Amino acid sequence: MALSEIIIDAMGGDNAPLEIIKGAAQACLESSSLFCVFVGDRNRIKPIIKAENIPQGRWRIVHASEVIEMDDHPKEAVNEKIDASINVAARMIRDHIGDALVSAGSTGATVLACAKNIPRLPGIERGVLAAVFPASKSQRTDSGVSIMLDVGATLHCTVNQLISFAIMGIHYAKNILSVDNPRVGLLNIGEEETKGHDVLVDTNKTLRNMSDFNFIGNIEGKDIMRGIADVIVTEGLTGNIVLKGMEGMAEMAMQTGKRIWKKSMLSKMGIIMLAPVLKKLKKRLDYSEYGGAPILGFEKLIIKAHGRSNAKAIKNAILLAEKSARSKLTTQMEASIKNFYLKMFEDKKPEKNGDTPEKPDRKE
Amino acid sequence: MALSEIIIDAMGGDNAPLEIIKGAAQACLESSSLFCVFVGDRNRIKPIIKAENIPQGRWRIVHASEVIEMDDHPKEAVNEKIDASINVAARMIRDHIGDALVSAGSTGATVLACAKNIPRLPGIERGVLAAVFPASKSQRTDSGVSIMLDVGATLHCTVNQLISFAIMGIHYAKNILSVDNPRVGLLNIGEEETKGHDVLVDTNKTLRNMSDFNFIGNIEGKDIMRGIADVIVTEGLTGNIVLKGMEGMAEMAMQTGKRIWKKSMLSKMGIIMLAPVLKKLKKRLDYSEYGGAPILGFEKLIIKAHGRSNAKAIKNAILLAEKSARSKLTTQMEASIKNFYLKMFEDKKPEKNGDTPEKPDRKE
Repeated sequence: MALSEIIIDAMGGDNAPLEIIKGAAQACLESSSLFCVFVGDRNRIKPIIKAENIPQGRWRIVHASEVIEMDDHPKEAVNEKIDASINVAARMIRDHIGDALVSAGSTGATVLACAKNIPRLPGIERGVLAAVFPASKSQRTDSGVSIMLDVGATLHCTVNQLISFAIMGIHYAKNILSVDNPRVGLLNIGEEETKGHDVLVDTNKTLRNMSDFNFIGNIEGKDIMRGIADVIVTEGLTGNIVLKGMEGMAEMAMQTGKRIWKKSMLSKMGIIMLAPVLKKLKKRLDYSEYGGAPILGFEKLIIKAHGRSNAKAIKNAILLAEKSARSKLTTQMEASIKNFYLKMFEDKKPEKNGDTPEKPDRKE
Repeated sequence: MALSEIIIDAMGGDNAPLEIIKGAAQACLESSSLFCVFVGDRNRIKPIIKAENIPQGRWRIVHASEVIEMDDHPKEAVNEKIDASINVAARMIRDHIGDALVSAGSTGATVLACAKNIPRLPGIERGVLAAVFPASKSQRTDSGVSIMLDVGATLHCTVNQLISFAIMGIHYAKNILSVDNPRVGLLNIGEEETKGHDVLVDTNKTLRNMSDFNFIGNIEGKDIMRGIADVIVTEGLTGNIVLKGMEGMAEMAMQTGKRIWKKSMLSKMGIIMLAPVLKKLKKRLDYSEYGGAPILGFEKLIIKAHGRSNAKAIKNAILLAEKSARSKLTTQMEASIKNFYLKMFEDKKPEKNGDTPEKPDRKE
C-alpha cells in the first residue's frame, strides 16, 4: 500500500512543536500507511523526532524559517510572513505535494493561508471551517455525531455562502459520517421561518426550495446537541462561539465532578459506582477524541486541530486526515457538488406552496 | 407597604394563559406586596384566576382582544395587531401604569412592542435583552452569576450599541447582582485584540480606552461559564444562540443522567448517593429558577420569561420584576448612565499606550 503523505504544520498551536511531533509519532504507531512531512524550524523539530523515535522512511522535514503566533493579526501575518510554516505547508498542497494538511496554529491564519494558496473546488465560493461533535441519537439509525459549519472562517455570511456550507456539510456527512440522507438544519434564534435577520430568512427560503435537500428548517441553539440535524449550517461567528460555549460547559461539568468527588465519602462512593458510565461520557465529550475541524472547499482536505491540542488530539487529527485522504474525499466531493448544482437546475419546478409568491423575492 | 403593580402579559408563551396565571398565583403567595395586572382575553383569564384562588385586591384584568402568536412575524404583528396583549401592556407602562412588565410571548414581539411604546433611558441608543445565568466562582468574592447582553434583541450591532450594552450590564450587575466592580468581557472568536470582524475589533479598542471600565478584554465561548467576566457583551445573534446552546447541553446532561439511572443497579445506587449534589446542580442549571431575561434600556424594567415557561418560571419572573421595581432600578440606572457618560468626557486623557495613535481611528 502506498503511504499517505500528510503535511504537518509542526510550529502551529500552543504546544508546538513538542506535542505535534509526539502526536505524529503516536499516529505512526497506529497507522503503517502514514508518512509525515513536518514543516517548520528544522533545528527545533529534528531533535524531537529523534527523541520520539519516529522510524526512518516515515517522515521528512521541510524547513520554514517563520512562525505565525497566536496573537499575530492573521491576515497581515499570512501576507507578511511568506516563509511561515502554514504558508509553506499550504503552498506544498497547492503544488500537489502531500495528500492532506494538519495544523494546530491560529485558525484565522490557517484558513487564510489555505484560501490564499490552495485552489477551491469549482462551485464553492469560499472555504469553510467545520466541527464534528457528539450529539444525542434521536433515532436508532443516527450516527451520534453532527457536523456544524461554518465555525470561524467566515464570520458574517451571504445567502449563497450559507447554501454552499449546506452542500459541503451534506457531502461530508454522507462520505465521512456515513449518514444516508443527512438532515440539514439552519441555526437561528427561533424555529419559525420568519426568525432572524434578512440573510437567515432568505437562506431558509432558498433551502426550502431545494427539493433534493433533507432540510428540517431552522433549529435553535438548544437543538445542536439533540441529534435532530446531521448538518448544522451557521455563520462563522455564531458557530465558533456556540461551539466553544458548549465546550466550556462540558469542561465545567468535569470540574463539578471533581468537586463532588472531594465533597463527602458518600458522594465519593457514588462516583466510583458511576465510573464506567462517566468514563464513557468523558470520552464522548472530550474534543481531543475528535482530532480537529475539517476545513472544506479546497482541493485537498485540511484538518485544523484545536490550538490547545495535546499529542492525543494531534494523533487523531493526523489519522483523520489520512483516512479522508485515502477515501479521496475531495475528489468525490467535487463530483458530488457538480451533480448537486446540475440537479438544482434540472429540478427547478413551479412553486408548490400556494403561500409563496410565484416570483420569489430572494436577495441575491 | 404600597403594592408593586406588575403588568403581566397573560396571553404570551407556549403555556399561556394557564401557566402564566398559575405562576402569578404562586408569586402572590410568596410576596404580600405584589399586585398583578393581567392583560389579555378576559373570558379566558377570569375563570383561571378564580380556579387558582388569587385573592381579591391582588389582581385586576385589562382586556386585550388580540394575541401575537409565536410564528407571527414580530414586526408585522406588533404593527398590525394594535390590541395585542403585549402592545396593550407596553402602552400601560408608557402611560405610567404599573411598575414593571412580564411577558413569556415571542421575544421579538416583546422587544419590538417595548421599543415602539416605552421611552428609552437618555443615552441608550437601543433596548437590550439580557440573560442572567449561573457561572463558576473564579474567586471567593464572585457572585456565581453572570449577565450576558444582548441575547436576541439586536442581531448585528454597531460599536456604539455594544458599548451601551456594556454600560447597561455593568449597572445591572452592580445593582441587582451586587458586584462591586463588574468585570466586562467582549465575546469573540479569540482573546487577541485583533480577533473578530471590524465591529468587534473597534469595540475592543473603545472599551480598552475607557478608564472607568474594568474591561478584561475579549473572552471566548469557553469562558462564558467560567465566571471570569460578570458582564458579557455580545451581538444578539451570537448571544441568543450560545445561550440556548448551553441550555440544550444542560438538558442533554439531565437526560444522560436519566439513562444512567436505568442502566444497572450499581449506577442506580451511585446516583442515589449523589442525589443531594445532583439536586443542587439541577437547581443551579434550571433556567426556570432564573425567571427570565431582563430587557434593559427602557424607563421601566421588562422581564421576558422563556417561551416554554411553566408556572414556576413565571413565578420567579414576576418576583424578579417586583424586586427590581421596588429597588427603583431604572431610576438609579438613569442617574448612573448619566454619570458614566459625564465621567467618560471628564476622564478623557491623552493616550497612555505608546502603540495607540493619538487620534484613534474609531468608526462611529
